Amino acid sequence: MSPDPTLFTVLDLSGTFVFALNGALTAIRATRLDVVGVVALGMTTALGGGVIRDLCLGEAPPATFRDWRYFALAIAGALIAYLLNRLLDRIGTSILLFDAVGLGVFAVLGASKALDTGLGVAPALALGVISGVGGGTIRDVMTGQVPTVFRAELYAIPAMIAAALAVLSVRLEVYGTLSAVGAVLVCVVIRVVSARREWNAPPPPSIWRTPGGDR
Amino acid sequence: MSPDPTLFTVLDLSGTFVFALNGALTAIRATRLDVVGVVALGMTTALGGGVIRDLCLGEAPPATFRDWRYFALAIAGALIAYLLNRLLDRIGTSILLFDAVGLGVFAVLGASKALDTGLGVAPALALGVISGVGGGTIRDVMTGQVPTVFRAELYAIPAMIAAALAVLSVRLEVYGTLSAVGAVLVCVVIRVVSARREWNAPPPPSIWRTPGGDR
Amino acid sequence: MSPDPTLFTVLDLSGTFVFALNGALTAIRATRLDVVGVVALGMTTALGGGVIRDLCLGEAPPATFRDWRYFALAIAGALIAYLLNRLLDRIGTSILLFDAVGLGVFAVLGASKALDTGLGVAPALALGVISGVGGGTIRDVMTGQVPTVFRAELYAIPAMIAAALAVLSVRLEVYGTLSAVGAVLVCVVIRVVSARREWNAPPPPSIWRTPGGDR
Repeated sequence: MSPDPTLFTVLDLSGTFVFALNGALTAIRATRLDVVGVVALGMTTALGGGVIRDLCLGEAPPATFRDWRYFALAIAGALIAYLLNRLLDRIGTSILLFDAVGLGVFAVLGASKALDTGLGVAPALALGVISGVGGGTIRDVMTGQVPTVFRAELYAIPAMIAAALAVLSVRLEVYGTLSAVGAVLVCVVIRVVSARREWNAPPPPSIWRTPGGDR
Repeated sequence: MSPDPTLFTVLDLSGTFVFALNGALTAIRATRLDVVGVVALGMTTALGGGVIRDLCLGEAPPATFRDWRYFALAIAGALIAYLLNRLLDRIGTSILLFDAVGLGVFAVLGASKALDTGLGVAPALALGVISGVGGGTIRDVMTGQVPTVFRAELYAIPAMIAAALAVLSVRLEVYGTLSAVGAVLVCVVIRVVSARREWNAPPPPSIWRTPGGDR
Repeated sequence: MSPDPTLFTVLDLSGTFVFALNGALTAIRATRLDVVGVVALGMTTALGGGVIRDLCLGEAPPATFRDWRYFALAIAGALIAYLLNRLLDRIGTSILLFDAVGLGVFAVLGASKALDTGLGVAPALALGVISGVGGGTIRDVMTGQVPTVFRAELYAIPAMIAAALAVLSVRLEVYGTLSAVGAVLVCVVIRVVSARREWNAPPPPSIWRTPGGDR
């Protein structure tokens, strides 16, 4: 009753491609880069979370290094972003949507893979979130930004909810295609709605008392 | 004659809690963050050094992923910092003290664990220092700061001295509760005194010749 | 017919020393550091790429932690840079040359080690490049710079060409001292000529349309 492998491979590969596309676009907007930087940062966004997850689970070489399709799709996504970044800026909504799918898929896969390795619930949630947001976080740090995930929008929270639903369905022994896809969908809905409505996680209390104050 | 496990577990867990508290406070002061960022960076500070140490020693999943108490204390410390950061700013001295204990404990544990794995003295010292300062260094980089450890105050040096004392006592076959606690205390004294007196490690010679010059 | 081990160890150790020297000098120029920061960042530059490579290949502890000569040379290089940075600034050309040798050696070793572990061509190229540029990239991020490799000069490209030549000669079963040294030399020539003539990899197309526009 584990998820349909074909469906999940397709989702995982799609997530990799869209993360590379979106990651490279974000890097281009953040700082001045050449083609090497755009491709390297697109690949980092797409593959970084999974590499950290696998190293933390003791799986080395990481899965993405052993299946050429991940590399190929990451390079393709980053190169397309490099060549067509003006065009792609205009279709931001569909990219947000695909990016949210990638976030959910990586969170669900990360959490269930951690449980498979025998880890407990808390580390499984942490690795789910790290799988989803890790690549983008490294990219932001490398382009001199404080990672978005730490300061704006809901990004880690939908990933954590998707990871929690995956953990719950594994524990209830109903983890399978249906529950996994359901967890991804919940992540996508929360992520897209929150981005549209500009919801943010609350800042520390001291900031609430000085609204508008530039710290 | 190895250190009393209960004592060391207590110190290690206390170090984790205080690193999370102090790490989250430092992150709040450094940049604008939401609750996700504060908790994530507090956890990074508390757990980051140990994760790097374990990955470098070939121990995956890292110890902190296999004992729920580390996660629980890291989250608790970060959340308390998030909620009470105004209050905690006022009791900075006690936090400095606890933080110095964490630094010493992590340095001693890191160095002795590296020797256990069969590494030599130099890598054991390096892993001791990395265990102590690694989490805070990642936090600083993620909040856009050049890590304090590289530029101000004595921070790596007391960690290295604690690690060196641990290595020395292992080599002299007197490593145990007494020598380990002694190494931690030496670290605490040097760290606290140097912070109070604002001692700094020397900058490169060229800077000495242009005092006051803003490079 | 694999490369002469003595020659390669000599090159590898020289690369480590010069990377530490050059890495520490770059760090001194980038930001205000004390002696701890200079030594730590010199060592990071010299050893970082190899540590990431080994962790990704499942080799832990990393090779650099098991052979004291790497540590000793990294510390020596960084300390010399700390003490003599004014003098060394004046002999920049020879440092560029040695640095290019280190880049080529690390790229060739990284790629061939990845193939040895059974990885495919794309991951071998990626790990070759990461071995060559990884340490400097971490140093740049830690000193608050967007890594040079992402935005200026040809740096990753000569490393990738050297890695590709190593992969090709392994596949053609002619990998040995001659082909390995040849690959390193090609890297050195491209790197030095491109630095002299200030060649850059192309930026994204949108920037071409707004020459001089400060993004």
